[in-house]
This record gives sequence, C-alpha cells and structure tokens, in this order.
Amino acid sequence: MAYELYYWPSTPGRGEFVRLALEESGADYLDIARRGGGMPRMMKLMNGPRVATPPFAPPFLRSGKLLIAQTANILLYLGQELSLAPATDAGQLWTHQLQLTMADFVGEAHDTHHPIANSLYYEEQKREAKRYAEQFRKNRVPKYLGYFEKVLSRNPKSDRYLVGARLTYADLSLFEIVAGMRYAFPKLMKRQEKKYPLVTALADRVADRPRITAYLGSKRRLPYDQVGIFRHYAELDG
Amino acid sequence: MAYELYYWPSTPGRGEFVRLALEESGADYLDIARRGGGMPRMMKLMNGPRVATPPFAPPFLRSGKLLIAQTANILLYLGQELSLAPATDAGQLWTHQLQLTMADFVGEAHDTHHPIANSLYYEEQKREAKRYAEQFRKNRVPKYLGYFEKVLSRNPKSDRYLVGARLTYADLSLFEIVAGMRYAFPKLMKRQEKKYPLVTALADRVADRPRITAYLGSKRRLPYDQVGIFRHYAELDG
Repeated sequence: MAYELYYWPSTPGRGEFVRLALEESGADYLDIARRGGGMPRMMKLMNGPRVATPPFAPPFLRSGKLLIAQTANILLYLGQELSLAPATDAGQLWTHQLQLTMADFVGEAHDTHHPIANSLYYEEQKREAKRYAEQFRKNRVPKYLGYFEKVLSRNPKSDRYLVGARLTYADLSLFEIVAGMRYAFPKLMKRQEKKYPLVTALADRVADRPRITAYLGSKRRLPYDQVGIFRHYAELDG
Repeated sequence: MAYELYYWPSTPGRGEFVRLALEESGADYLDIARRGGGMPRMMKLMNGPRVATPPFAPPFLRSGKLLIAQTANILLYLGQELSLAPATDAGQLWTHQLQLTMADFVGEAHDTHHPIANSLYYEEQKREAKRYAEQFRKNRVPKYLGYFEKVLSRNPKSDRYLVGARLTYADLSLFEIVAGMRYAFPKLMKRQEKKYPLVTALADRVADRPRITAYLGSKRRLPYDQVGIFRHYAELDG
C-alpha cells in the first residue's frame, strides 16, 4: 500500500523533508493534497470530528492504520521503514536528535521573515524581520552550520555522513537546509559555505544521488517561493 | 547506575520536562550542573573535543554509554525506560508527536519575551515582545490549548490522559506547560482555563500525584524566574 503524504500543495516547506526520504528510497507514495480532491481530504484528517489522533498541522503521513504528524516524528518512523537510519536504539536516537536540531534551525529560518506572527504578512513585520535576520546571519547560521560541520568531522565511521557510514534521513534533511538557505540567503551562503566544507560537500553529494537528481528535475519537486519557509528577500540577506 | 541530567542549574527551563519524568518514576538521577563541579562537566560534554555525539544545547541525559539531547528525544527514550509511554510503536509515535507539538508551544512561549534574539536582553526587544505576545495570547494559546483539549476529549480510553488509560510523559509535560503559563500569563490563563476544562483538570491531577507533590515541595524543584522560558512581565499579559 502506498504511503500518503499530506502537506500544503504549493510550497516545499516542511513536507519536503519527508518527500526527500520517500524519493531517495524509491518508495511508493501519494502526495495527497496535490491531487484532485486532496485538499478536502487533508482538512478532514485535521479537523474532522472522528479522528482519534488528530495532527496539529501538516505535514502528516498515513501508513496503513497509522497517522503520524510532526516532521521529525514522521522521519523517525520512515527511518526504520525505509532503512534510512541505523537499526540500533542508540543510532536511532542520535539520528533523531540531529533531525530535531535541524527542525530548530528551520524554525529560525522561517522566523527571519515572520518574527512576530504567521498570521501577519511579511510586509507587516518587515522592521522586526530585518532585526531578526541580522542576528540570524551573524550568530545563528554559523552556530548551526558549525555544529553540523563538527558532527561530520567527529563521525568515527566517515566524514561523508552525519551518522555512521551510510546515508540517513538526517543527511537528506541537511541537504534540504543547505538548498533552502542558498535560495533564501545567497550572499550569506556564498561566504559561509567555504567555512563548512564537510557540510557543503555532503549537500552536493546528496544532490548527485541518482534518485535525488531525478527527483529534483521532476515536477514533483516544488520550487522555493515567497510563501514557504525559505524565502528570498534581498533586504534580509545583508 | 543513576541517570545523569545536564541542564542550566538556575532555572527550570526545558530541563524541567525531563525532571518531571524522572521524579514521577522515582528514578535514581543526578542533576549534574547543580552539584559541585557540575558546570565544567556539562560544558566539557558540549564543547570537549572527544565527544563523538555532541549535544547542540542542554538539556541532555547520560544513561550508561548513551548521551541523548533534545528534550523530546530524551523523553522518547525515558518513556520506554520508565514505562511512561505505551510499549507499541503506534503509541510511542503518538505520544512523541504530542510532545513535539508541546515543544513548539514552549518555543513560542519563550519567544514572547525574546522574539528577536536570545543574545539580546528582554529590554532590547520590548517593543517587538509586546507585539509578539499580543498575537500569542489572542491566537496561539487558544489554538494550542484547544488542540490538547480536543486530544483529551477524543481519547477513546479516557479523557483523563492524553494517551491511552495511563499516565505518560506527555501528561507530565502538559502539566509543566500549564504551570509555566500560569506563572507567566496569570491574567490570560485565568480567562483561558475555563474554556479548557480537561486540560486544566489533567494539570491539577498531575500536581496531586504523590511523587509530584513531594517533588514540587522540595528544593529540587526550581522556582520560575526571569531568565528561563516562562517569565512574567505584566506588560505581556495584556
């Protein structure tokens, strides 16, 4: 039975971290909200009165009887299903820990353009966004990228993967962060990437994996835009 | 062997979610950074050159050879160790999903007083904090509390627990959120609590559990303050 992915149909957003895991594995999946009648189905699972385990927000995944929300939680599950994480408890916890730290990074990248409220337009919080983005560029991006560089450099098995000697969903997610950051903050990333060669090389290697390359060239890959998490506003790029 | 909890010694913060799980279970644990020589030990695990799986930030837990960071990840682990989550995969994922949604709520509660940057004082971002807190009170708190009320009301086993018919770490965490919100936003919570009777009753029942009551009355429970996540600034309480 195909996995069913539920996410907003017009933007890569957090759904993209799940898509990359499914695509790399060649898994059979349906991107429900991008299909005819998909949006009402998604809203019914969120707001319908009979769902015993309702998601707070997309993305969520249906796998048989399971309904799983929260990006990192979906990947915790898919990591075992698709062999994209170690089978040991210790390996699973470490991979998940890295994913949760990436979730924090992604949240801050989002807040660069929405520091006050998601319910307001960017134009209504531009002044605050400028201030937020300044400290994000100066302090937070180096802190996060430096952290993942350190993790790669200390991996006793290989500095080509975050965990062990094989690809995990954490590597795919780090690729997505680098790709999104390159779109949103091209000037910043041009300067920063040189300082984090292991992170940059990992992201480039992920993009070169056959299934990922095919996916990135397909219509299934949504372009970055000005409604999602990673947005390019020149005034926020310093 | 005792669990070792590592967290900033002077504030409940995110460490408190872990402490509550350990306390409810009567687990043997050491709160390392609050002991003599504990802070250097904590910093060494974060920044020392030989740690293969370095945490990005506290809290983290040492359990035998395991070093586990990210609050929700620690609880995912302790849920099984301390029987504070279902043993089934489906039950574990659902409990963890709720915890991750609470982590989002906690992050936003923090951002009410630090919407621009953690590296700046509250006084340097008071204007932005006021704007952030306004939408937090109006939109986000009802959305989150309403969500957990819905989860309780739909639990087919019992509306006294978030998951199944037994206490889980998610219930302990929801107690901590209600307690922290009561401290930080007393006026708001006085109005809001009436609308979410199941959430309120759950929090009050957790406080009445014998080990939690004993813990809350002990010196091990740190008071809320003006340096942690939940802070009381009257001007942010509307």
